[in-house]
Order: sequence, then C-alpha cells, then structure tokens
Amino acid sequence: MNGKPKTARLSEDQKFDWLRLIRSENVGPRTFRALVNACGGARAALEALPDLARRGGLRRPIRVATADEIERELTLARKAGVRFVALGEPEYPPALRQIDSAPPIIALRGREEALQQPAIAVVGSRNASAAGAAFADRLARGLGQAGYVVVSGLARGIDLRAHLGALETGTIGVLAGGHDRPYPPEAVALLPKIAEFGAVISEMPIEWEPRGRDFPRRNRLVSGLALATVVVEAARGSGSLITARFAAEQNREVFAAPGSPLDPRAEGTNDLLREGAAICARVEDVLAVVDPLRERDPFADFREDTAEASEPLWGEQPLLGVDPAATPRTRAGQELDEAVAPAFDPGEPATLQQIEALLGPSPISIDDLARVAEIDVRRVRMAIVELDLAGRIEHSGGDRVALLPVSAGRETP
Amino acid sequence: MNGKPKTARLSEDQKFDWLRLIRSENVGPRTFRALVNACGGARAALEALPDLARRGGLRRPIRVATADEIERELTLARKAGVRFVALGEPEYPPALRQIDSAPPIIALRGREEALQQPAIAVVGSRNASAAGAAFADRLARGLGQAGYVVVSGLARGIDLRAHLGALETGTIGVLAGGHDRPYPPEAVALLPKIAEFGAVISEMPIEWEPRGRDFPRRNRLVSGLALATVVVEAARGSGSLITARFAAEQNREVFAAPGSPLDPRAEGTNDLLREGAAICARVEDVLAVVDPLRERDPFADFREDTAEASEPLWGEQPLLGVDPAATPRTRAGQELDEAVAPAFDPGEPATLQQIEALLGPSPISIDDLARVAEIDVRRVRMAIVELDLAGRIEHSGGDRVALLPVSAGRETP
Repeated sequence: MNGKPKTARLSEDQKFDWLRLIRSENVGPRTFRALVNACGGARAALEALPDLARRGGLRRPIRVATADEIERELTLARKAGVRFVALGEPEYPPALRQIDSAPPIIALRGREEALQQPAIAVVGSRNASAAGAAFADRLARGLGQAGYVVVSGLARGIDLRAHLGALETGTIGVLAGGHDRPYPPEAVALLPKIAEFGAVISEMPIEWEPRGRDFPRRNRLVSGLALATVVVEAARGSGSLITARFAAEQNREVFAAPGSPLDPRAEGTNDLLREGAAICARVEDVLAVVDPLRERDPFADFREDTAEASEPLWGEQPLLGVDPAATPRTRAGQELDEAVAPAFDPGEPATLQQIEALLGPSPISIDDLARVAEIDVRRVRMAIVELDLAGRIEHSGGDRVALLPVSAGRETP
Repeated sequence: MNGKPKTARLSEDQKFDWLRLIRSENVGPRTFRALVNACGGARAALEALPDLARRGGLRRPIRVATADEIERELTLARKAGVRFVALGEPEYPPALRQIDSAPPIIALRGREEALQQPAIAVVGSRNASAAGAAFADRLARGLGQAGYVVVSGLARGIDLRAHLGALETGTIGVLAGGHDRPYPPEAVALLPKIAEFGAVISEMPIEWEPRGRDFPRRNRLVSGLALATVVVEAARGSGSLITARFAAEQNREVFAAPGSPLDPRAEGTNDLLREGAAICARVEDVLAVVDPLRERDPFADFREDTAEASEPLWGEQPLLGVDPAATPRTRAGQELDEAVAPAFDPGEPATLQQIEALLGPSPISIDDLARVAEIDVRRVRMAIVELDLAGRIEHSGGDRVALLPVSAGRETP
C-alpha cells in the first residue's frame, strides 16, 4: 500500500451526531450519505429528518435516535472494549470504503491494524462436510501465511473453520447484530481470540439482536472488506451465494471451490463456477489473482479522492468523499442553497409525487428514473431520500430502487 | 444433419491395398495420407515404400504387410463379425474424419448407424469413487436420452460406467488393440452388448495385443469421434487428461466434472476447469453447448469438401479429401509428375539431409521447418514421410514433428 491516505477525523460531537443519524429510523448507509451531503452535515440532517419523512409520506413522526440512546451505546461500547470508526477516518477499512452502502460508522473490537491489511473472505455452508471444513481451514491458513487477513461471517461450519485457520495470522469476524448480542452461540467463545489477533466488527447498534434479514445485509460487509471472496461448499440458496453476489456487484473477485456433482453441498459452488467464478482448489489459485491486485493498491482511487477533498469546506463532508460539484456549499446547520439542491425546497412537492407515481415494485436505477421523469438527478435523489425516510424504498444493487407499499414501513436500522 | 454426404466407395482391391499400406511398418495415418496423395494411390505407395524408407535412413528393408497377412486378417474379421470402413466411405464417422490423424481404415463390430449419430465422449479414472461412477452413469443415460451416442475407452471405472449407462441408447467402445485381443478383461463380457446397440471399433490389426503406448494413441479416436469430451474424475497424469488434450487440439468442446479439492481423484478435472474447460455438473451443461452445434451440422465442411471432390480424378484420392492443387494428377501406379511432387525425385537427397539436420528432439511444425529450410513445404513433407518410414519421426499435436535417434526405430502396427 502506498503510504497512509490523507483523511480527516471527526470531532467527538460530530461522531455523536453521526451515530444519532445512522441509528435513526429508516436511515440506512445510502440515505445517511445523501442526507449529510444534501444538508451539509449530520446535525443539520437530524434537524431536517422529521420534515423530510413527513414529505415522503410517513403519517407519524419519524423516530430520531435520542442523545440518551447514543450515550447508552457509548457507555456499553466502552465496557465491551468497542470503539467507533467513521467512514473517512484513517482506521476505516479502505476496501469497505469503496462499496455503495459503506456503513458510516463501524463498531470495532480488536486490532484496527487488521482493518488496513489486504483481506480475503472465506465463506460457506453451516452444514459443511468434513472435507469442506478441512479445505476451509487449509485455505485460511495458507492465505494468512501469505499475508492476508481472512474475513468471514462467524457462522458454524465453513465460516468458523476459516476463522480458526487464520486465527493467529489475523481474521475479521463480521457480526450480523450488535457486539453485545453475539451470534451464533458457537462463535461466542471464539470472539476474544479473534479480537486478540484480528477484529470483530458490526455496523448495528450494540444491543441489536440479529434477525433473518440482518444476515444477508451483513454479508455485503464480508465481501466488501475483501479483495476476493472464496465460497467453500454451498448448497443452492445458501447465504454464501449472497456474499458471492455482493462480491461480484462490488467488482471483487469471486472464487468457488469445486465439489462432486452428486453432493448437494456443492451445488451452489458448482453453479458459481458455471456462472464464471474462478476455481479455487488450492490457496495458489487465489494468490495468483490477488497478489498482483495487492501490488497495484486497488484502493488508490479512494486515497486520491480523499486527498483531493482534503480541504474541508463544510463540516464533515470531505470524509464521505462526495463529488463537491454535486453538493450545496453550505455549512452544517445553515440554510440550504436552493439553487443547488432544489429538491430540498419544500415548495416543490410536485417532484416527489411524480417520482412516487413512476416507481413501482420493480427496481429501477435512479439515473433511469431521472431520465424518464425528465427531472434533475439530484432532485430525484432527494425525493428518494424522503420516500426512504418514510420507509417506502427498497434498495437493490446498481443504485436501483423500488417502492414499497405505504403499510410496509421498515424497521430500523 | 443435412442429408447424406457425397462419398466414394473403395473397390475390394483398393481396400485390400489400403489395409496392406496401413499395416506396413512405420506407416501411421499421417504418413498413409501423405503417401497416397504423393504416389497417387495405395498400390503405388506400397511399391514405393522400400525406396522411400531406405532414403529416410532405414538400414534394413522396411517390412511391408504381405497379401497373406491381410487375407488372414480379413478371414478373422469375417469370423468375428468385423468389417472395415475406409476414410471417405459413407459409413465412416464424420467427426473422426476431421482429425489430423484420422485412421484410413477402422475395423467395425456392431451397427454402422451408431457411427453417424452425434456423439459425446465420457471418460475418467479407472479407480473411480462411488459418486464418480454414479455420475458417469447418470450423465451417459441423460446424453443417450437426448439422442447422443456415448463414446468411451472401455476401461474399468468411469469408462465402463459410461458405456453401461448408454448401453441401450447406443455407445461406442474404442479398443486400444485389435478386435481379437479385447482389453481390459472387465470389458470383454460387455462387448457383444455394446455392439448390439452401438459399435466397437479399432484401428489396429485384429490380432494386435495392446501395449502402454496404444492407449494414449487410442484416446485421440475417443475424442475425435465426439463433439465434446467430458472428463469425470481424473487424477493428475491420468489418461483421461490425454483424451481431453486431444479433444482441445481437435477443436472439440472439453468438459470436466468438478470434485472436492481434497480428493486426489478430482485433481485432474479441477485442473481442467482451471485451464478453461467447461463445468459439467449435470447433463444440461453439456446439452446447452452441443445441441446448437448439432443443429449447425459441424461437419458440413467435410460434406462440402467431399462433394467438391466427387469427380474422381485419380484412383481413391478423393476419399482422402486432399487439396487437389497440392497433389500430382497421376493415376495409381503411373509415374509421378516430378514438377508437382519434386521431393519425390530420388535425385534430390539434399532436401532430406537438410531436413534431417534441422530436426531435433524438440517438436517443430512442418510449416516452420519449411520456412527455416527455405524449401517448398511439399518437399519438406515428403522428406518427413521418408524419415517417418525409417522410424525416425515422432508426431506431436499441431502438425509438429521431432527427430528420433536412428536406433529408436518404432514398432508398427
């Protein structure tokens, strides 16, 4: 890696506001970024939230995370040895920074150095065969010896074997819930060990109990932290295939270990091979592809972005690495420049209604939506943020969105 | 397939001469073709053999198959229900016709219709796992039901399971030795069954006992008969990988069944996948590729070639589908036109010596050789034929040749 990136650091107050914003109802990573960019900072976004959500169609007040809630999370984090790293801070994992829905804040337990090393994700089925488990172990060990951190999802089976294989060279476990609600039980005893040589991270509130939908959501972080994702044994429909899909969407390498055509535990991996994943039958298969990537410093783009935005114009915005041209030149808490962010003008409900009318259950890219609507894409994005805050937007890969029925308001985060 | 190809049929006398020529010492399929083209027919080639071999450096008379030997083979063949099909005859398998070293004559037991159907080769290890054997059976059955003949090498393990799976829909077994020396023992009981619904073929003399080197040689016929070769379980260095290599050289599709990275029986197939073979984890994987090929009649080229050459100018030559421009316009047994086949001029030993001096143990293509030597490629080919008849040429893929030491004279079939 070519030297340290130029990065900014949030003040304690700013980080507090960031936590409040990301812990508020219907604020996901994409909406967080859009809000901070449009409003000029987290504090201003927090103030704007109730109005925006109402405009988006929410028929009750939006739940904004309170200062007390954040105080409680900070206290629990301190007790658990967990600290918070914000997007754009030097400790933030450079690979993760590149993904569309990079979490604005990650809660970290363990060594922050582990987040800076090049990483490979090794994932697979919970009901692994003995051969699959042994291969995961061998692979993780080899990747660790070659200088890579091994990322996985802490699930029993392949994931835990991968963590174990790379325990002493460094491994990153990504939780689906909060640090104080570790899951699954099989992983709990291992977490202190993982944190000793590597790291355990979570984007969720520290007391968040993980539910079904949190696992696929978490999987985007597993692939997003890594240069490549290797799937070792996966039945069809398995969660590991979601991780592989995220990896492909994130323009990361996807590897699959082959398996017998008669073994249902290999159907998913063989499908991946059929669809163009590279074969991984030994550690060298992965190294041959990622070693050159590592030399080329694949996240140099980000480092340059950060360097260019190194003169902060308005609060914490440079940390998000946004296009300054697309952003209103205001200070946090100041009034917005309507000429630059016209969709933010409460006098233009027409845009929102038009976007709402054009959206449906089929995902469409925001660019296509703007073209069809013949509305400036920034105004479209703002309308999407408003609908999103009302719990009415479902995000798909490739910046695509679909409209959810009014009744289906999502839970947060 | 678009109607019957226009083909010629050899007279009984011609076929007798063809058998004598191909059964003569150091006459392989390539040399056979070169000789018949250069001499204008098999009879003339038989007469020229002793001189050519002497020129090539053979220090004793070349062994030319006698009429008695051929009579004996014909008698044994009649008793065994074996008949001979010559290259260019309508019964000759159209796919096999396309390969560089297509045997001039194949000995056929069984249904000649089976040789006209589109075929898929299914091959693999002798020490197959239960899963590999079951998959070979399932695959062969599925291919048979889809209208393909299954070709294999009659070895125990995967090969025999493939033959068994396709027994009633039609399968072709290719012997490494002669029909009267079937091998291996495990296959012997199955041969009548295979011949009943399909075919057993051999290019070797009917009493030929197969030796080690005959198996890789035979494998080129297994792949050459088929649109695609599927390798099911193969350790590194296994003979099935030779079949796959032949298939690739013959521009046929290569498929490999995936297997566990920890199973040595899958190392060869996983290597094939790594090198670009298509994955075969179900019969549909193969059908998706070969069904469209079958529609397009991949051997139409040959049919056109044959149609164009349908007016025979000189004996049996049109059957070989050679380029008429490169061939002397003489009748079999007539004197050769020295202007067209100058290398045949016994007054030009310089060419032969030059070629011999330029060749070494590393294979070189005949075109490259001609360029380096600055000698017309047809004269180079003739020099190669002479050296070949003296047992001093080793052929490799891509029309490449290497020189063997004088002492290492090969044995014939």
